[in-house]
Amino acid sequence: MKKRGIFITFEGPEGSGKTTQSSRLVQYLRDRGNEVLYTREPGGSLIGDKIRGLLLDPKNKEMISTTELLLYAACRAQHIEEMIKPALMRGTIVICDRFMDSSTAYQGYGRQLDLELIETLNKIAVNGCLPDITLVLDIEAERGLKKAIALAKDESAGTPDRIEEMGISFHRRVREGYKKIQQKEPDRVKYIYVNDDEDKIFEKVLDFVKLMLIERGFKV
Amino acid sequence: MKKRGIFITFEGPEGSGKTTQSSRLVQYLRDRGNEVLYTREPGGSLIGDKIRGLLLDPKNKEMISTTELLLYAACRAQHIEEMIKPALMRGTIVICDRFMDSSTAYQGYGRQLDLELIETLNKIAVNGCLPDITLVLDIEAERGLKKAIALAKDESAGTPDRIEEMGISFHRRVREGYKKIQQKEPDRVKYIYVNDDEDKIFEKVLDFVKLMLIERGFKV
Repeated sequence: MKKRGIFITFEGPEGSGKTTQSSRLVQYLRDRGNEVLYTREPGGSLIGDKIRGLLLDPKNKEMISTTELLLYAACRAQHIEEMIKPALMRGTIVICDRFMDSSTAYQGYGRQLDLELIETLNKIAVNGCLPDITLVLDIEAERGLKKAIALAKDESAGTPDRIEEMGISFHRRVREGYKKIQQKEPDRVKYIYVNDDEDKIFEKVLDFVKLMLIERGFKV
Repeated sequence: MKKRGIFITFEGPEGSGKTTQSSRLVQYLRDRGNEVLYTREPGGSLIGDKIRGLLLDPKNKEMISTTELLLYAACRAQHIEEMIKPALMRGTIVICDRFMDSSTAYQGYGRQLDLELIETLNKIAVNGCLPDITLVLDIEAERGLKKAIALAKDESAGTPDRIEEMGISFHRRVREGYKKIQQKEPDRVKYIYVNDDEDKIFEKVLDFVKLMLIERGFKV
């Protein structure tokens, strides 16, 4: 695949501010006249939505974890082929809020499901369409959880219960998972430590993506 | 997995008489006092049915082939863990009308989708629970098609149109695919050439499974 656009993903534990920072970057790039696709799984594909429906239906309690991982991969494969690849081919910047690394961090490290299986399925779903750059917003599990719970109370970002449900050790494993991912692919995956200054974090986001965008002829 | 039952699958192109022969074997073994689970995908699991619903819904036209293969694998994984494995663990004979080799023969050889991907997904879905023996009922594509079309006119076994749709060269590739599978795994996969004498074919079926059943303490 010879893509002309740029594929940027945002990753990180709960409460790390991915959605804030990614939507800021989208706005920044659109303001400068670039065409940007802002997406997240299942990414607005009709089939993806239906698969997601199966995954989230509380009636499907007997669903085994392999089935679940295969359904997530199916959802991702559809998202990529139907939405992301065509956008990249026509020269669009694609910004995705959570992508394949979330499966590795949450299902693999957090829930401790078969890591090798998750990597195999990621590879199948992504089919060569890897992000050009992945920004991991890193925050301590305790502080991230507190932020996520506060956010959930304010907005419709899930319920505090759902976020707390998995417990602090789960969230610590997720954070550790992101670190392992970064160590494995330091060229693609960049780390930004999340303090309380959103503007400073955004500056770092820009620092990481600017050069790549300029080199490919986008306006920054 | 230490299973106590026996897992037998029936495979073959359209019109080869899989359903006739497999249900005869089920009846034969039940008549002799054995507990038998007779199944086919999606195998009566609620989740499998829902996934199947997505796959068969003609509205899902934009579904890409990788998504489709992942959904079939999800369906199979659920069938195995929820239905087949528990039955084998409690010492039941499991007889399945079409299983993983159908994916290889139909999607891989027939539709010429990525064979390696199909094998990877089969391995993931099956998760070590391979059939003890697979009986491939072999018939020439032309003769098989004629039989399948005649059957479809008589019964509710699909419509003649659906079966003919793919054309004779598709069905030839499927037959060829089964041959390749047999050459690759001659210990597991056994061939029975289908002539017009159903009783003779059933004798061959029994010949292949009898010793294995006796050795494991089943009544034949």
